[in-house]
Amino acid sequence: MIAVLKQNATKDQRDHLISWLKDQGLDVHISEGKEHTVLGLVGDTGKIDVELLQSLSIVESVKIISEPFKKVNRKFHPDNSVVEVPGSGVYFGDGSCVVIAGPAVIEGEEQLLSLALKLKEAGAMVLHGDAFKPRTSPYAFQGLGKDGIDILGRVKKEVGLPVMSEIVNTNHIALYEDVDIIQVSSRSMQNYELLKELGTLRKPILLKRGAANTLKELLMSAEYIMDGGNENIILCERGIRTWDFSDGAARNTLDISSVPALHEMSHLPVIVDPSHATGVASMVEPMALAAAACGADGLMIEVHEDPMHALCDGAQALTPDRFAAAAEKIRRVRSALF
Amino acid sequence: MIAVLKQNATKDQRDHLISWLKDQGLDVHISEGKEHTVLGLVGDTGKIDVELLQSLSIVESVKIISEPFKKVNRKFHPDNSVVEVPGSGVYFGDGSCVVIAGPAVIEGEEQLLSLALKLKEAGAMVLHGDAFKPRTSPYAFQGLGKDGIDILGRVKKEVGLPVMSEIVNTNHIALYEDVDIIQVSSRSMQNYELLKELGTLRKPILLKRGAANTLKELLMSAEYIMDGGNENIILCERGIRTWDFSDGAARNTLDISSVPALHEMSHLPVIVDPSHATGVASMVEPMALAAAACGADGLMIEVHEDPMHALCDGAQALTPDRFAAAAEKIRRVRSALF
Amino acid sequence: MIAVLKQNATKDQRDHLISWLKDQGLDVHISEGKEHTVLGLVGDTGKIDVELLQSLSIVESVKIISEPFKKVNRKFHPDNSVVEVPGSGVYFGDGSCVVIAGPAVIEGEEQLLSLALKLKEAGAMVLHGDAFKPRTSPYAFQGLGKDGIDILGRVKKEVGLPVMSEIVNTNHIALYEDVDIIQVSSRSMQNYELLKELGTLRKPILLKRGAANTLKELLMSAEYIMDGGNENIILCERGIRTWDFSDGAARNTLDISSVPALHEMSHLPVIVDPSHATGVASMVEPMALAAAACGADGLMIEVHEDPMHALCDGAQALTPDRFAAAAEKIRRVRSALF
Amino acid sequence: MIAVLKQNATKDQRDHLISWLKDQGLDVHISEGKEHTVLGLVGDTGKIDVELLQSLSIVESVKIISEPFKKVNRKFHPDNSVVEVPGSGVYFGDGSCVVIAGPAVIEGEEQLLSLALKLKEAGAMVLHGDAFKPRTSPYAFQGLGKDGIDILGRVKKEVGLPVMSEIVNTNHIALYEDVDIIQVSSRSMQNYELLKELGTLRKPILLKRGAANTLKELLMSAEYIMDGGNENIILCERGIRTWDFSDGAARNTLDISSVPALHEMSHLPVIVDPSHATGVASMVEPMALAAAACGADGLMIEVHEDPMHALCDGAQALTPDRFAAAAEKIRRVRSALF
Repeated sequence: MIAVLKQNATKDQRDHLISWLKDQGLDVHISEGKEHTVLGLVGDTGKIDVELLQSLSIVESVKIISEPFKKVNRKFHPDNSVVEVPGSGVYFGDGSCVVIAGPAVIEGEEQLLSLALKLKEAGAMVLHGDAFKPRTSPYAFQGLGKDGIDILGRVKKEVGLPVMSEIVNTNHIALYEDVDIIQVSSRSMQNYELLKELGTLRKPILLKRGAANTLKELLMSAEYIMDGGNENIILCERGIRTWDFSDGAARNTLDISSVPALHEMSHLPVIVDPSHATGVASMVEPMALAAAACGADGLMIEVHEDPMHALCDGAQALTPDRFAAAAEKIRRVRSALF
Repeated sequence: MIAVLKQNATKDQRDHLISWLKDQGLDVHISEGKEHTVLGLVGDTGKIDVELLQSLSIVESVKIISEPFKKVNRKFHPDNSVVEVPGSGVYFGDGSCVVIAGPAVIEGEEQLLSLALKLKEAGAMVLHGDAFKPRTSPYAFQGLGKDGIDILGRVKKEVGLPVMSEIVNTNHIALYEDVDIIQVSSRSMQNYELLKELGTLRKPILLKRGAANTLKELLMSAEYIMDGGNENIILCERGIRTWDFSDGAARNTLDISSVPALHEMSHLPVIVDPSHATGVASMVEPMALAAAACGADGLMIEVHEDPMHALCDGAQALTPDRFAAAAEKIRRVRSALF
Repeated sequence: MIAVLKQNATKDQRDHLISWLKDQGLDVHISEGKEHTVLGLVGDTGKIDVELLQSLSIVESVKIISEPFKKVNRKFHPDNSVVEVPGSGVYFGDGSCVVIAGPAVIEGEEQLLSLALKLKEAGAMVLHGDAFKPRTSPYAFQGLGKDGIDILGRVKKEVGLPVMSEIVNTNHIALYEDVDIIQVSSRSMQNYELLKELGTLRKPILLKRGAANTLKELLMSAEYIMDGGNENIILCERGIRTWDFSDGAARNTLDISSVPALHEMSHLPVIVDPSHATGVASMVEPMALAAAACGADGLMIEVHEDPMHALCDGAQALTPDRFAAAAEKIRRVRSALF
Repeated sequence: MIAVLKQNATKDQRDHLISWLKDQGLDVHISEGKEHTVLGLVGDTGKIDVELLQSLSIVESVKIISEPFKKVNRKFHPDNSVVEVPGSGVYFGDGSCVVIAGPAVIEGEEQLLSLALKLKEAGAMVLHGDAFKPRTSPYAFQGLGKDGIDILGRVKKEVGLPVMSEIVNTNHIALYEDVDIIQVSSRSMQNYELLKELGTLRKPILLKRGAANTLKELLMSAEYIMDGGNENIILCERGIRTWDFSDGAARNTLDISSVPALHEMSHLPVIVDPSHATGVASMVEPMALAAAACGADGLMIEVHEDPMHALCDGAQALTPDRFAAAAEKIRRVRSALF
């Protein structure tokens, strides 16, 4: 950690600060420049409250050198982590591109079963469907709840695909016994109470990046889960909120460079959700291909058999046919590159 | 609601869509332009899934005319709501500017008591202190927990100020019986499970805007609480995350125009937290004065008696002396204007 | 155009507004809802000042239905525009992915010549080098100026690649006679005086998106050039400024979805600059592959033969070797998909 | 400047880098930590290309300690600069709050004269009107041009107020002889060719912050003007583009904390433009009061005598009556505080 002192700090104030820092067990290296004095702090700087230090009247700025995330940091774990979905033969982070697919919300058993069969045939390796759905409006449909989780369990057995579903409440964990991957959505990325509970499990957790969270914040949230003992974490980029969001063509801005960036910062696998990132069916395939080409360990794609009750083709979710075509192109990109 | 159809929609597709919309109970007004056909949808459009409609292949765009928030909407409740803190004589939204002050985290009883007495003397009307603190890092101090809440209760009795404290877990609600105002922090603004529980109470809830949430999203979260039956909601602007956040001088961008904007959109009182919005002690007073001048119903200011253990003056929190000076200027601005 | 009127508008005010709108030559369709009255305006709405209309006390909001860009709009020109670089056999928009490469700033003739030969061999189709360089600091090197342009002209002849260079001043246009593509950088995207001048030429113009400009604004700037008569415009996505920019791993956020979005909105070719978008050499190749996979009509990649004077490998620019490897992968992705 | 080296840097690479840095005339202080080696660079670091350094394979990050702006930096000029509008008795930065007012675009002489007389009576101290207007659309009205500047000159003489007008083209400078303050709009903030020309004048320049530019970038643009010899610079905050811009109530987000932040960073006066920042008449007064309360050296307010040709009251611009009321409140706030 580096602390830059202001020019007008008195000798007394500086000595006071330096002796306090030494009391915290740090070595302090002092560089005197024309305009600033710079303190290099060496040792276990994790104990220092950066915001407090930064706020001192004699401190101009504090620069953090060590990343605050440890267990998820590639520096201390140079090899890729491979997250296995137990009993399914599906691995995230082994060089393959795992395709997760499903219908956002579970609407009923028949609908889910029919779709799941088509998805499996088209090459999907994990079935996704939500039973609990956080919605901006209290008046919107919030999912089938426990019934939805039960449907998912029955369809899983019938079809033979591992399943993934979102969790919104720590008190629901017991319901997810048959769910193979628990998803934490972007709105819950900093629900630390939930993350702590998920850290006590050994099940794979899909952790989605918050719509306005930095990669460091995402990794700090993963650190909460891993610190609890659960190392089976899959990171997911799903688009960020930028000034472009409502005037632009897409609902969010897919931060595609987060794929190589997260791979550099962390050993955890990274997947991309092009459906939520764009909110537009016509952009799902090109964005899925972009993610596959730049090394994503997986994709999560929304598919609906009958968008808007057969009214028209082209709803936000892909139809099974368009999904199958996209999945084929994803395989072509991967075999051309990896 | 307005739906703009694409030029290349066939007559069949259009008729199909229009008849489906009518089946949903809506009146459909059709305007034919040179480049577009526009459908005006009149009736209970709240039932329509906007994203689904938007995603149809023949739909170019959907424009929402009615706001999705109802109970918190000024349109249906033209007068200001006044939120009373029971038994304290403190009212939010009655034209006054309520000053809430305190030390971010509760560190101990002695510290809190000593500070609270000074704050009361300087004119603070509510004491704030957190016992449960969501932190980005799992390794950072997370507050005293239940002990902190107990300390707050004892200091409240001693000093005679109503108290406010943050909640992070629905399972903790029982602990907050003696807390007068429950605070929902920005990270929890879209924790709908928590909001639903708070809706069952009748205690005032301070709802902080998420760092990257629009005003509409803030109002939708307030709608969750009010829909549960709790009408005692105080909105709080605390800075938003913009591209300016790490290069800029301040930690967040205080969105000061949210004060008149929220007053126009909603009947609920609106306060401002200049401490979290800027993260810099020297900016707290100017931002507090700006908020007071543009009509905020209150302010929430971090004060610490002895920043960094007396090391230096000038920590992020104001000292009680600087707080007292700022409070005096706030009163001068208000009496010059209101 | 749709104008939503406020509930509290009097009949007089409404009639006044409607008759004024009719005087502007528009047809006005009126839909009365419970909460709002909506006016549908049909005709040449381009003449209406939207901001003025929006600001009227009786108007709640104005929704624009027709895009304000016309000549660059795919609606009125459904086929892709193909921009030819005259005499070079290079075409943007014909389904190929044109690779532009070069050393940011021209430092000298020998350096440029040596690099250009390697780039050509590795498959680059256009040589890029800047002679005039807008820099944030007045104290930074601003390029070789006219001498740089002359060097570029001589290297072009020697190597046999068409060349591209940035323009910063309308008064410099005469210098660019031998330059095949004139580049407008992101900082100049809304320098309308410059755009108007470039509209009088017939040379291809590479128009880079401003770091905080929407796609509509980019297209409006292209409209300035095309309205002047120059239809040879190539659009370029080069990363946008988001809250992630200084904490994140990349300098800007590459808005990769702008490729399919611009292709949908406009008939103009779209290329991507992964070097400026990320500012990090290790991310250039993955981002180039992402762009190639999602349909970009070209790429613009910074290459430097000897980053930091042979001090170390790995500067922001790729070395010629790494460029050659990336170019090969780009070709593999394209032949797998298109 | 601080350069943090990667763990895996070899001794050779480090020695190479260190000797190169010493060749640039810098002193290099080395601190060895467990995870990193940190180089403290002392001396004239302005000569180092930060991006190049940052991009080296052995460099993890570079932290800039000294600000890159010098002449506008308060560190080297602790007292406030006072910018005089020659011959007018108007001073920016002397503790007063100068109110600039006028009608965005000049529409005609009669209109401007009538308005100017009312503005003067209400307390405006500078008259603002644009003759050249950069517009997003090539089809929008771009101002009266030279005729507008001539009208402004005649009204100035008649009314006796100094005048301000925007410049868009370096070739127009000669036209501005009678204009007292030349305005550089946000779109031109990084038009360095224009800034260099304005640096050769001695007339006050109003430099508006770009809609997505950091405060440092604003100060770097001011540095261009001051480096040319013109020290009469007034900075202007006019709202920034955030993700809130189109969903929010305001067109831009007024970054009100830029007032104290710029005052801390620079000795130049800082004014605020609440009209462009919000785009909504009802928010202009509250935002003007906020700016006045937090220490702005001036305000720039759009006023129109007859918004939308007398159609309705309430257009974006204030009417003269509402302006007079706001100006009175601004004076009350200032006399309560300063």
